[in-house]
Amino acid sequence: MRDVYLGGVGMTVFGKHLARRLRDLGREACLKAIEESRIHPKEIQAGYCANALGSAIQGETGVGQNVLWELGINKIPIINIENACASGSTALREGWMAIAGGFYDVVLVVGVEKAVMPKGTMLNVGAAELETKLGDVFPGYFALTAKKHMEVYGTTKEQLAQVSVKNHANGILNSYAQFRKEFTVEDVLNSPMIADPITLYSCCPNSDGAAAVILCSEKKAKELSLIPVKVAASVLTTGCYENGADITGWEVEKLAAKEAYDMASLGPEDLNVVEVHDAFTICEIIHYEDLGLCKSGEGGRFIEKGATDLGGLIPVNPSGGLLSKGHPVAASGIAQVVEIVWHLRGQAGKRQVENARIGLAQIMGGGKEGDTKACTVHILVKVQNTITLDCKDNI
Amino acid sequence: MRDVYLGGVGMTVFGKHLARRLRDLGREACLKAIEESRIHPKEIQAGYCANALGSAIQGETGVGQNVLWELGINKIPIINIENACASGSTALREGWMAIAGGFYDVVLVVGVEKAVMPKGTMLNVGAAELETKLGDVFPGYFALTAKKHMEVYGTTKEQLAQVSVKNHANGILNSYAQFRKEFTVEDVLNSPMIADPITLYSCCPNSDGAAAVILCSEKKAKELSLIPVKVAASVLTTGCYENGADITGWEVEKLAAKEAYDMASLGPEDLNVVEVHDAFTICEIIHYEDLGLCKSGEGGRFIEKGATDLGGLIPVNPSGGLLSKGHPVAASGIAQVVEIVWHLRGQAGKRQVENARIGLAQIMGGGKEGDTKACTVHILVKVQNTITLDCKDNI
Repeated sequence: MRDVYLGGVGMTVFGKHLARRLRDLGREACLKAIEESRIHPKEIQAGYCANALGSAIQGETGVGQNVLWELGINKIPIINIENACASGSTALREGWMAIAGGFYDVVLVVGVEKAVMPKGTMLNVGAAELETKLGDVFPGYFALTAKKHMEVYGTTKEQLAQVSVKNHANGILNSYAQFRKEFTVEDVLNSPMIADPITLYSCCPNSDGAAAVILCSEKKAKELSLIPVKVAASVLTTGCYENGADITGWEVEKLAAKEAYDMASLGPEDLNVVEVHDAFTICEIIHYEDLGLCKSGEGGRFIEKGATDLGGLIPVNPSGGLLSKGHPVAASGIAQVVEIVWHLRGQAGKRQVENARIGLAQIMGGGKEGDTKACTVHILVKVQNTITLDCKDNI
Repeated sequence: MRDVYLGGVGMTVFGKHLARRLRDLGREACLKAIEESRIHPKEIQAGYCANALGSAIQGETGVGQNVLWELGINKIPIINIENACASGSTALREGWMAIAGGFYDVVLVVGVEKAVMPKGTMLNVGAAELETKLGDVFPGYFALTAKKHMEVYGTTKEQLAQVSVKNHANGILNSYAQFRKEFTVEDVLNSPMIADPITLYSCCPNSDGAAAVILCSEKKAKELSLIPVKVAASVLTTGCYENGADITGWEVEKLAAKEAYDMASLGPEDLNVVEVHDAFTICEIIHYEDLGLCKSGEGGRFIEKGATDLGGLIPVNPSGGLLSKGHPVAASGIAQVVEIVWHLRGQAGKRQVENARIGLAQIMGGGKEGDTKACTVHILVKVQNTITLDCKDNI
């Protein structure tokens, strides 16, 4: 299996883009990734595009082709991928396989979504049968998860709120973030109740946006004037009903994390920066535990003591996470990787994690625990002293 | 790159399945492929699922997971793929890459669709902006194509109709086909006019159905009690606007065919059986030409002289094609491969192409010529004298 490197990366501002089409957003992200790579679009040998909701909301399929044609890219394989919230990271893994397997040297991976909908709209797609109608929707499930975590491990609602406070504080430093506003624990706790203990500011938004990366072989990476960042692990797995009984942790994520650490020959103690799927505040706390950043049940106390703050033991979601940066479903998994790349290359501006060399991105998609449709973990490593550097800060 | 072999294959009857869900249809096809392989579902290391319209029509995403969970398959990567009519064959190619690249030894690829809609419903997905509203829909475009082919090459409406007559005659021999009824040239010409010269019986239907194949490495193939069939070529490419001026042929298909022949070190003269994307009668005639089965402009005369009949020079669409077998969008590309495998293994019953050793499947998806979103060509070869055979006829 060949090593796979990151080329240029790019993303749009996440938020409401009511007047822009999927292809407009996708094109912007791709152009940034291509321009940073300083390659010609015609050098791209295959394109993977993640989009989860375009068919349902915009009535648009073949989104990848629509995006790439905006860039004059054609006569190559273009593949559209869907895996709920993990659509982008799944596309990334398919792109990684295409290079690792020796099929191509330069692959473009883009995730794009327009998920902003009128208030009160219930999105049924991705749900198992009947669950939407029965009220078993995401905020409800994660409220139960939070309640159980509080009961079993003594996690407090203040600790939960702290996740939102931290991520919004980080988001202020990120010009790509949708919500750049400071919140206090009280603000989060006093925001409208959605499903006890989950309040409005404990939930990520639906957003519009796109993110893109160029993946390339080692040979091609050496031609680029970029700090070399290698994909040390790319793992995708799927939930397993038999593990659905304990909702305070997610076996699917532990499985993906173990596979990724094994593949990279690294452990959680080696990580310098992490992006996780904080769809709701409780999620981030459980991710700490499932990824091995802290022990099971310790997630609440881990954030309370500031371990995951910028400047803490292991900064998590320096981008602002989904809570502050926003969540354009299929773009999120790729945007996480863009953020990690920026930190490893020292391009993350005011939120830069100093001397970051190893980063991890995690995201889950669809269903809950037992029926999680996809969980991915990517580990990226800055490779030192192998390639001449000439990298510009582009934040 | 490692060789990739077909394991078991299976499909549902194509047609109207109003009372069955996507997962019901997908499960049936997968179970057949698994049972023919005589493997345990847990031996499957990755799953690729093609579905084009589930999100738009059924409000269902994550279709691959929903199908595979019906079989107790989880804790593995499951990837959902969309590429319009070429969704199934694109998933097949991703599965092929996963094995050829050395990532897995056993991969399940399934395509499933419920595309039957109320009469008169216009499906907008897959269309470029405004084209549906402007009336530039598929029957209209292919009517123009047919008119031009008639004008430039002297193709007649009787030759066009002959495609439908042949494919329906073949479909009578296929218990999986949706329309098993004999038509005469007069029946086709006298059926209701859709877009001159395309009549109702010149168009394929929207159908419900599923098809699945197991793909495996050479090592694993040797463990199966099946006649070994190898994927000699798997090609996916995308249309190119610059070639849109001549609508009597499709550059994207010529490009895909050339790549596939080169990859397989074979030419059109080596083929024994072919399945093509006969969405409309004119399409099959152009595919003859673009795949090199006959010279450009000769397609009409090629069918007129019976060259592509069962028993002819090179039988095309022995399954009945989309015209008779039906067109459950994302299932069609895989069903074509299932049909080819049956012929190569001598399992095609009354429509068996005798001594078939090499087969080709071609399908295109989305848009028209210049903006064709995907075109795939797969070439399958029966490998002789390498593996002990113990294959049962399962038609």
